[in-house]
Amino acid sequence: VINSLIKAFTHLPGIGQKSATRFAYFILEHHKQKGLELSKALKDAIENVKNCEQCRTLTTHNICEICQNEKRDNSILCVVENPSSIASIEASGVYSGKYFVLGGYLSPIDGIGIEDIGLVDLENLVNTTNVTEIILATSASMEAEVTNHYIENMFQKADIKITKIARGIPLGGDLEYTDINTIAKSLTDRN
Amino acid sequence: VINSLIKAFTHLPGIGQKSATRFAYFILEHHKQKGLELSKALKDAIENVKNCEQCRTLTTHNICEICQNEKRDNSILCVVENPSSIASIEASGVYSGKYFVLGGYLSPIDGIGIEDIGLVDLENLVNTTNVTEIILATSASMEAEVTNHYIENMFQKADIKITKIARGIPLGGDLEYTDINTIAKSLTDRN
Repeated sequence: VINSLIKAFTHLPGIGQKSATRFAYFILEHHKQKGLELSKALKDAIENVKNCEQCRTLTTHNICEICQNEKRDNSILCVVENPSSIASIEASGVYSGKYFVLGGYLSPIDGIGIEDIGLVDLENLVNTTNVTEIILATSASMEAEVTNHYIENMFQKADIKITKIARGIPLGGDLEYTDINTIAKSLTDRN
Repeated sequence: VINSLIKAFTHLPGIGQKSATRFAYFILEHHKQKGLELSKALKDAIENVKNCEQCRTLTTHNICEICQNEKRDNSILCVVENPSSIASIEASGVYSGKYFVLGGYLSPIDGIGIEDIGLVDLENLVNTTNVTEIILATSASMEAEVTNHYIENMFQKADIKITKIARGIPLGGDLEYTDINTIAKSLTDRN
């Protein structure tokens, strides 16, 4: 059972045999109570968390707290890849609109098409609400660019402004530690 | 419940808020089955693992497999701090004796005395078996040295050889990347 526990820990992202072994012995030697809490927290979360019917983020409600919040601006919709992006943007404290979670990017090679990510739901949501601006807060990969392009086409005829989050040198970031693509982008997008 | 899960992950050694968040979303977004397996593995291990009545390592039996193994040499006893040390030594494949797990080191400052670590059990075990050599495979801390010293005194009158694992430059290790204390030790212990 110790080896089963070590193996189960190696399924976490970035956790190899050594860290997994360390976790298992840490719990079994001195922290059984914390281990039981983790076991229960996992079970509770997995059994109770589902996708918001409106924005598709993870929530314990049918409609998540942000979508339910009357004070948030319904006219701006921020499109992200996954729920953890929402947590990051919320932590910045400057955004008061709504969100939509794609759940992935278009990738014909991997067989990921329009129905596999939330594009149909996104179209329905935008068409049934008064969205005037869509912010694409996706990553900088090829798949993300293809997906962004698809979304731009989808709302081409609608009177909706489509923007992208700015990319460039991070605040406090040094030029010498920044990759050349980011430097190039920060120069072409200078303002 | 998502935040409870993230918090539960931060109790693991070396896991901060960022890694814990990554683990939680990894499981809730795409790997619920693996999460349930981890939850169950934790519960099973915590409920079934206890300390071996003879060597005090973690085991699901009353007496662990190594202590039960008739082929292992009863005359050599390797004293280690914790069960994971046994796993490391077993992986090296050169040791065929038995083990004893202290479960900590003497530390008057932290209120850890003779009864808190396995010293009484160690004395009983040695006195009731035919141990002729005790190998101290403990760490290099001050507390470990005090504990080693206590063990040496404990068996001073008995006809038992007490040895310590060799310390020095690791195989394949470069002098320039080795700390000065290890270099000093490797010079005084040259052979």
